[in-house]
Amino acid sequence: MGKINASLEGALVSINGVLTPPEEAVISIFDRGFLYGDSIYEVTLTYDGTPFLLKDHLDRLWRSAQGIGLEISWSRQKLREFIYDGLNKVDYDRAYIRIIITRGGGDIGLDPSLSEGQNLIIIFRELKPYPQKWYDEGVSLIVTEVVRTPKKSMDPNIKSGNYLNNVMALKQAKEAGAYDAIMLNHKGQVTESTSANIWMVLGDSYITPPLDAGLLGGITRQRLLEIGTSAGLKVKEENFTADTLRIAQEVFITSSTREILPITKIDGQPVGDGKPGTYTKKLHQLYKNKIKETIEEERKLNSGK
Amino acid sequence: MGKINASLEGALVSINGVLTPPEEAVISIFDRGFLYGDSIYEVTLTYDGTPFLLKDHLDRLWRSAQGIGLEISWSRQKLREFIYDGLNKVDYDRAYIRIIITRGGGDIGLDPSLSEGQNLIIIFRELKPYPQKWYDEGVSLIVTEVVRTPKKSMDPNIKSGNYLNNVMALKQAKEAGAYDAIMLNHKGQVTESTSANIWMVLGDSYITPPLDAGLLGGITRQRLLEIGTSAGLKVKEENFTADTLRIAQEVFITSSTREILPITKIDGQPVGDGKPGTYTKKLHQLYKNKIKETIEEERKLNSGK
Repeated sequence: MGKINASLEGALVSINGVLTPPEEAVISIFDRGFLYGDSIYEVTLTYDGTPFLLKDHLDRLWRSAQGIGLEISWSRQKLREFIYDGLNKVDYDRAYIRIIITRGGGDIGLDPSLSEGQNLIIIFRELKPYPQKWYDEGVSLIVTEVVRTPKKSMDPNIKSGNYLNNVMALKQAKEAGAYDAIMLNHKGQVTESTSANIWMVLGDSYITPPLDAGLLGGITRQRLLEIGTSAGLKVKEENFTADTLRIAQEVFITSSTREILPITKIDGQPVGDGKPGTYTKKLHQLYKNKIKETIEEERKLNSGK
Repeated sequence: MGKINASLEGALVSINGVLTPPEEAVISIFDRGFLYGDSIYEVTLTYDGTPFLLKDHLDRLWRSAQGIGLEISWSRQKLREFIYDGLNKVDYDRAYIRIIITRGGGDIGLDPSLSEGQNLIIIFRELKPYPQKWYDEGVSLIVTEVVRTPKKSMDPNIKSGNYLNNVMALKQAKEAGAYDAIMLNHKGQVTESTSANIWMVLGDSYITPPLDAGLLGGITRQRLLEIGTSAGLKVKEENFTADTLRIAQEVFITSSTREILPITKIDGQPVGDGKPGTYTKKLHQLYKNKIKETIEEERKLNSGK
C-alpha cells in the first residue's frame, strides 16, 4: 500500500477529519464503499485558494445521500471545517477536492442496515491546468454503445461509488483514440459524457438534455442555464439523438474542473467547421466572468465570518 | 480503521498474497475498487475444509474480468495457492471465501489505463449455518420496483464491485420486513433476487429465467439445470413475469452459500399452500447428494497431487 502515483505527490487526505499523507490514506477492505461501491461523492475545486460553489456541491452531496437512503453523520458545518483544515495545509494555486462518504463497515452483506458507521474521506490534490490545446482546438468524442444506467436502476443524478458503466464507456473512447464518450439512454437519446454534461448549438440555441434523459445535474450545467438566460441567450433543455448532435454547428461539454470544453470531432467527423465556435467561446467568457464574481463574493462572505 | 465487526473475529485476509488479520486489512483510498467499484469478485466456500467447485468460481472470475476488460495479473495456480495458504491458517468447519480483484491505483480518473497494478484481496471467514427455520418454513420476498441494471449498461452476469442497484433493492425488502427482493428487467420479466437466482415450479416443471433476462449465471443454478436433467426432471430456462411467479406452486432461490432456500411468501401473499414444497425438497436432496460426491472427488484430486 506504500507506493503512490507520482501525480499524487503533495496530495493530502482527510479521513474522518484526520489529515493523512496520501501513501498512508487507507480504508478497511470491509468498508461497503470498497465491497459494493456503497458510497457517494462530490468533486469541487478552488480558484486562488477559495472553494467555488461549495454550497451547491454540499447540497448535491446531501441529495445523493438521500438518493441512496443515507443520513449523513456529519453536519455541513463540520464538513466545511474539514475542508478548510485541509486547504490550510496545502498551498496549491488551485485545489481539486474530492469528498467521499461511504456507508462504512460491518458484517459482510448487501443489507445497508449492517453498517456500523460511515466513513468520510476528503482528497486534496493540486488541480493542474488542462492543456490549452484542448480549449484552442477542441477535443473528440465517440458515441458509445454502452447505455447510460437508467434512472430506474440507479439514477445517474446520484453521484455514487458505482462508476463501472462510465469506466467501460471511457475505456472504449480511449481505445478509439478519443477524449471521451457520449452515452445514450435506452431510447437512443443523448444523456451526458462519462464525466461531463453535453451541449450543442443549433441555429441560435444552446441545447442540453433534460435531467429526465438520465444524467447528472451538473453544477456548471445549472449555472450556464441561469447565466445564459440572464444574458438573453436562448438556452434550453431538450432531448436529442446522436444524429442531431452530429449536425449541430457547435458542441461542447461542461464540468466543474474543465468549465467549457469545445468538442470538434464526433466519431472522427468534424463538428461544424471542425473548430471551437463563437457560441461556445461567448458562453465560456460569460462563465469566466461569473466565476470571478462568485469567488469575490465567497471571499467577502468568508472574511466577514 | 482499527475496529472490526464482531462477526469478523477469526477472519483472515490475504492482500496480494500476504495474510493479514481483519483489523489490519486495508487498501489505499486511491484504489479504483474504492473510488469507482472498478473490481470483480467471487464468493465460494468449503465443505469440511474442502473448497467446493473452485474451478467453476475461478472460471467465472476470469469471465467477469474479461467483461470489464481486465487481464488478471495472477495465474489460476497462484490464486489457488493463496486460497490454500489462507485455508491452512484457519480451522472453520466451513469457510466463506471472497476473492476480489481491483483494477488498482494510479492517478485519479475514470480511464482504466491509469491503473498501475491490480490488487488481489481474499477474505476468509467462518460460514456459520443459516437458521434451520429458513429451510423448514421458507422465507419471504417482495417484488421491487428497482429495475435490475440492464445488460447494455453493466451486464449482471459480471460479478463486479458495483452493487448499489442490488443494495437499494434489498434495502426496500428489509424495510418491508422481507428476506430479499425479486428484481425485474425493464420488460417486466423476472431476473433474480439481489444475491441469488430464482426458480419456480409450475405443473411438473422447474423454471428459471435465461441469462438473456439479465442476471448472474449462478454456479448453483447451472449445476441444478444439469442435475435436474440427469435425474429426468423437467428443468428449463424460460422468461416469466412476477404475475406468473405469484401463481407458481413452489418458488425457491439458489446460491452457493444458501444452496436451495424455499420462498413461501411474495409481497405478503403465500406461495402455493405457504409451505416449502416437495419439488423444492426433492431438488435440494439431489443437490446435497451431488455436493457429497463432488467434495469426495475434489478431495481425491487434491490428495493425488
